[in-house]
Amino acid sequence: MSTSGINGRKRVVIDSVRPQLDGGRFPIKRALGETIAVEAHVFADSHDHLRAELLHRPHGKPTWNVEEMVHQGRDVWTASFQATPLGTCRYTIRAWIDHFSTWQATLKKRCEADQDVTVDLRIGAKIVRAAVKRAAPVDARKLTKWATLLSSARDGATAVEVACSEELAAVIRKYPDRSLATTYEKELLVTVDRREAVFSTWYELFPRSLGKGVAHGTFRDCEDLLPRIARMGFDILYLPPIHPIGRTGRKGKNNAAECAPADPGCPWAIGADERGHKSIHPQLGSPAGFRRLVRKAKQHGLEVALDLAFQCSPDHPYVRAHPEWFRRRPDGTVQCAENPPKRYEDILPFDFETKQWKSLWEELKSVVLFWIEQGIRIFRVDNPHTKPFAFWEWLIAEIRRDHPDIILLAEAFTRRKVMQRLAKVGFSQSYTYFTWRNTKGELEQYIQELAHTELSEYLRPNFWPNTPDILPAHLQDAGRAAFIIRLVLAATLCPSYGIYGPSYELCVDTAIEGTEEYLDSEKYEIKRWNWNRKGNIRAVIARVNRARRRHISLQNLRNIQIHSIDNDNMLCYSKASEDKSDITVMVVSLDPRHVQTGKVKLSLDALGIDPHEPYRMEDVLTGETHLWRGRTNRIRLDPAVMPAQILCLRRGRSGRKKERARQVIS
Amino acid sequence: MSTSGINGRKRVVIDSVRPQLDGGRFPIKRALGETIAVEAHVFADSHDHLRAELLHRPHGKPTWNVEEMVHQGRDVWTASFQATPLGTCRYTIRAWIDHFSTWQATLKKRCEADQDVTVDLRIGAKIVRAAVKRAAPVDARKLTKWATLLSSARDGATAVEVACSEELAAVIRKYPDRSLATTYEKELLVTVDRREAVFSTWYELFPRSLGKGVAHGTFRDCEDLLPRIARMGFDILYLPPIHPIGRTGRKGKNNAAECAPADPGCPWAIGADERGHKSIHPQLGSPAGFRRLVRKAKQHGLEVALDLAFQCSPDHPYVRAHPEWFRRRPDGTVQCAENPPKRYEDILPFDFETKQWKSLWEELKSVVLFWIEQGIRIFRVDNPHTKPFAFWEWLIAEIRRDHPDIILLAEAFTRRKVMQRLAKVGFSQSYTYFTWRNTKGELEQYIQELAHTELSEYLRPNFWPNTPDILPAHLQDAGRAAFIIRLVLAATLCPSYGIYGPSYELCVDTAIEGTEEYLDSEKYEIKRWNWNRKGNIRAVIARVNRARRRHISLQNLRNIQIHSIDNDNMLCYSKASEDKSDITVMVVSLDPRHVQTGKVKLSLDALGIDPHEPYRMEDVLTGETHLWRGRTNRIRLDPAVMPAQILCLRRGRSGRKKERARQVIS
Repeated sequence: MSTSGINGRKRVVIDSVRPQLDGGRFPIKRALGETIAVEAHVFADSHDHLRAELLHRPHGKPTWNVEEMVHQGRDVWTASFQATPLGTCRYTIRAWIDHFSTWQATLKKRCEADQDVTVDLRIGAKIVRAAVKRAAPVDARKLTKWATLLSSARDGATAVEVACSEELAAVIRKYPDRSLATTYEKELLVTVDRREAVFSTWYELFPRSLGKGVAHGTFRDCEDLLPRIARMGFDILYLPPIHPIGRTGRKGKNNAAECAPADPGCPWAIGADERGHKSIHPQLGSPAGFRRLVRKAKQHGLEVALDLAFQCSPDHPYVRAHPEWFRRRPDGTVQCAENPPKRYEDILPFDFETKQWKSLWEELKSVVLFWIEQGIRIFRVDNPHTKPFAFWEWLIAEIRRDHPDIILLAEAFTRRKVMQRLAKVGFSQSYTYFTWRNTKGELEQYIQELAHTELSEYLRPNFWPNTPDILPAHLQDAGRAAFIIRLVLAATLCPSYGIYGPSYELCVDTAIEGTEEYLDSEKYEIKRWNWNRKGNIRAVIARVNRARRRHISLQNLRNIQIHSIDNDNMLCYSKASEDKSDITVMVVSLDPRHVQTGKVKLSLDALGIDPHEPYRMEDVLTGETHLWRGRTNRIRLDPAVMPAQILCLRRGRSGRKKERARQVIS
Repeated sequence: MSTSGINGRKRVVIDSVRPQLDGGRFPIKRALGETIAVEAHVFADSHDHLRAELLHRPHGKPTWNVEEMVHQGRDVWTASFQATPLGTCRYTIRAWIDHFSTWQATLKKRCEADQDVTVDLRIGAKIVRAAVKRAAPVDARKLTKWATLLSSARDGATAVEVACSEELAAVIRKYPDRSLATTYEKELLVTVDRREAVFSTWYELFPRSLGKGVAHGTFRDCEDLLPRIARMGFDILYLPPIHPIGRTGRKGKNNAAECAPADPGCPWAIGADERGHKSIHPQLGSPAGFRRLVRKAKQHGLEVALDLAFQCSPDHPYVRAHPEWFRRRPDGTVQCAENPPKRYEDILPFDFETKQWKSLWEELKSVVLFWIEQGIRIFRVDNPHTKPFAFWEWLIAEIRRDHPDIILLAEAFTRRKVMQRLAKVGFSQSYTYFTWRNTKGELEQYIQELAHTELSEYLRPNFWPNTPDILPAHLQDAGRAAFIIRLVLAATLCPSYGIYGPSYELCVDTAIEGTEEYLDSEKYEIKRWNWNRKGNIRAVIARVNRARRRHISLQNLRNIQIHSIDNDNMLCYSKASEDKSDITVMVVSLDPRHVQTGKVKLSLDALGIDPHEPYRMEDVLTGETHLWRGRTNRIRLDPAVMPAQILCLRRGRSGRKKERARQVIS
């Protein structure tokens, strides 16, 4: 280890910079305007005073923005900056020894001990004079005057007064000598996404089921439904694949191996008749029709999200044009998807070990860019865990470079580390295990893990109580209350959530026995929905989503706090905005069948509630206002009425006014 | 992000490799022969089977040693290797998809489901045939035969049998296809020290106090004391600076600003009369005399450790020869050491911000090399936290390159992060806060932090109950029992410990009032010790050190386990060797004045003790054997007799024999 490459005069150490993911290998994530609170250990040999700065800049910009760091004691320094603009920001830390401050503190101690400081004043004069060169003219003049005064020592008392003055310190502080500053060895990255990457409300819908009479549904039919979906408060309309569906190996109803001539096939078996991932299934409409749907949706505050399912039906043009992208078996057939002993003859996976991986990667990138050109910025990515991580990391970086407003939701219901890696390589949101977390203990533990561990720096959960693939056991034959419970949990635990819409709002709860598959699943057939089916929860969904829009506390994940409630079938948690002006408290029964009561014990301190004053809690689900007092309050939840409360803390006058106007929204 | 530099066909991810310090920025530490248990998250897209290898090699060697890793479930893979040889070892991980194993597992599932496997067998044949090229001739012949059998399909049943056979799997496993293997992006480092870096017993001694009559003590006098120190069981004899002591600013007795003509001065004020850090104070002896002492010490199993105090008295030749290495004040004087308002006129620190830092660094390195040439390999480094971390990192790397057997003990009693950084940049051992940790809670918490957090990977504590600078409050006027308590704690909590010897074994307990300074400290005067002073604890020290040598469980830090005892003045902890063949249990009273009794609750499971059988515990301090049974046993500690027990678990016959031979060693 030679001294070359070392500047031995740089004495400050910068260490343990957080947030930092895997030693800086991956960026952390923030939405536009969110805060990045940075902490570091900064110290040097000896007891000299230090200064430290947080440096940050958009990737590609040459100059750093600078935030002065504050020493919090024990060598911990902090500062923060706002995530902006969209794209990637870099941050690092610079620190140096503040010789002036060190000198001034020493001088003060000497003066207190009545020691002679003549020589010390001359040392100070030298430091001040050195700062003159770095100072703006007006300050340079001041500093020159002070330096002269310190070194003349004609008037000792005045010199000491100036030397110890805050005024001198404040001016010289503006012109630090950074020549021996240490800069942290890494530049760390933060991905800045738009707000919807954190806070979004998804509605999944198969347009093909929206037709009138026996007709195949079209984009135009879908347009008719937009006002209804918008009124429920959704902001993303997610469509499963809209591409041509293969004929070879097509599945029948309920995933039957043989299909009837009229069966429409599964939309994820993509590609037929020379058309594939950049085409639209003709029965849905034309490219112009699709663009029109996207436009109309926007007028209703809805953004259309598409599915990226990188796989092919045997009829996909890729299969003939690019046989090198598929794994061929010794009998000449192409390897189909399988989960041995099960085989999916209607779907061929790409062979990502192909020697032609570069052309495959480029083609798949062109698919994404194609839909971006059609106005799409949000994608739900099908089974990303069956394609290499390196591919996703490359693809997402490539796309984000020109389109930092892209949002990708990873549909990977798989092992923890695999899901985490997908989030690290760039997916904006992730499906989660929420779908199967039912008990109080499971839910509390899981949300703590997501919100209060390192995961919160990079994995943004999106809670789905159901999907076309999953009707979980606790929703099967469980009725309306169960659907409301899971809705409220998803929508208030997590700032992003989504439902496979028609089935959910209509409380469709029939599975194929012994499975989590919907009976007569829409994946394999065209459905006709009775939108006004009795017992639907459309009104509750609308109220929940309205609360999410009105209460910024519900638009954040990290602010969740669990509160104690003495009933294992009840869950209580709160969310507070940073300034505590908006506080929501959720009490949810986990029992869709029986009345549950419990005593909530709120952590009042954390919520900034005065324990001695009564406070008003407005239930946004019922419109009722409750007067609470102190930590402990009793809650009764009747699933026949409403198995949950979303309580909004009303402070001061407006609270009283609301209480007077007490009413129940039916 | 272009695809250049990427091999998109490599699908395996290697992540979270541990141990790993600060993203691989610093090496972890092990003693020769210690185990490095490595863990990593290894996974790929899809469900293909993987293989992973831990690669390790001595730094500079071209080829890796390979350890097959084992999948522990949940994508966690482990393997371990032994730290050897001395110096630096590198380790990393390589993993790949095991196409054969994936194929074989699929085939078995198909067979179980009675599916046709004709094509699968042909796929297998291809995989087997590909392995032929990599195989040794004898295996190549076997593989060729099997490949033919699989592809011929003339005898389906036999082919399936071979295809599913463990024999085929075992042979092909020897010749993996690593062409698409992922290698972890970092090579991690481990510093391999000799055993003494972990397990060492230090005795600190000022040779100048060993003279006969009024004479200044010499190395020859020191030789006379060697058998005594060796009999007490120490293995390192640490001498404070042995260099010429400055006259200018010399301190008198008790650190008085003025000294009397006969005062010897403080040994840390190094340098006088043209002689400095590479010279020996003439009154101690000659260089030859010193080398003789080192040699004689070795004959007694003692290694001499020197002090590295990188600072100068004003008379040090460096001051005139290298004025550029010091900070000069405007009045022409050299800046002395200070802790404002205190000043230490007898000591000048180096100015590590000097533009001539390279020549300073090189000179200080030459000091270390000089003493290495004199046979010294262990150094106690004075106040390392007042010199730049970059300097130490460079110096230690430079020295270790040719002298991997060097051991450096950092004497930095300062802030946590500073001490941790010194350990990270290369110090082999560190002084600790043990000196001031007294209560049960403090001690338990501190040892857990040292033994069971990341610290244990790189910071090796060395527990000192006293030093020439520190007579802590709890040893002041406290008497013999207090010294025994702190001795037993230091020696059994920590594999490395040391005492400032004469004062400790003779229980010198008088401080300057209101301070932690010894009254009439040996730092400023020559002492005469009454080696047989009444109440000395020499015999106890010998017994404690003998136990440390005999019981390998006491030579480790990470194996400590705290056990419950229902008395806040008593502490109970155990240590077990890896194979549990050696188990020691310590029960220590923290009260030197009163009898304390308590019920110990041992975690029997962890110690491998049968809860239903009685077991024998031999107290190595008294020689008594106690018959214990079950978890709970009562202990009574009388400070007038012995305030601690070091119990050694005796299993089986030897236990019974010892019990018969029950006796008390006086």
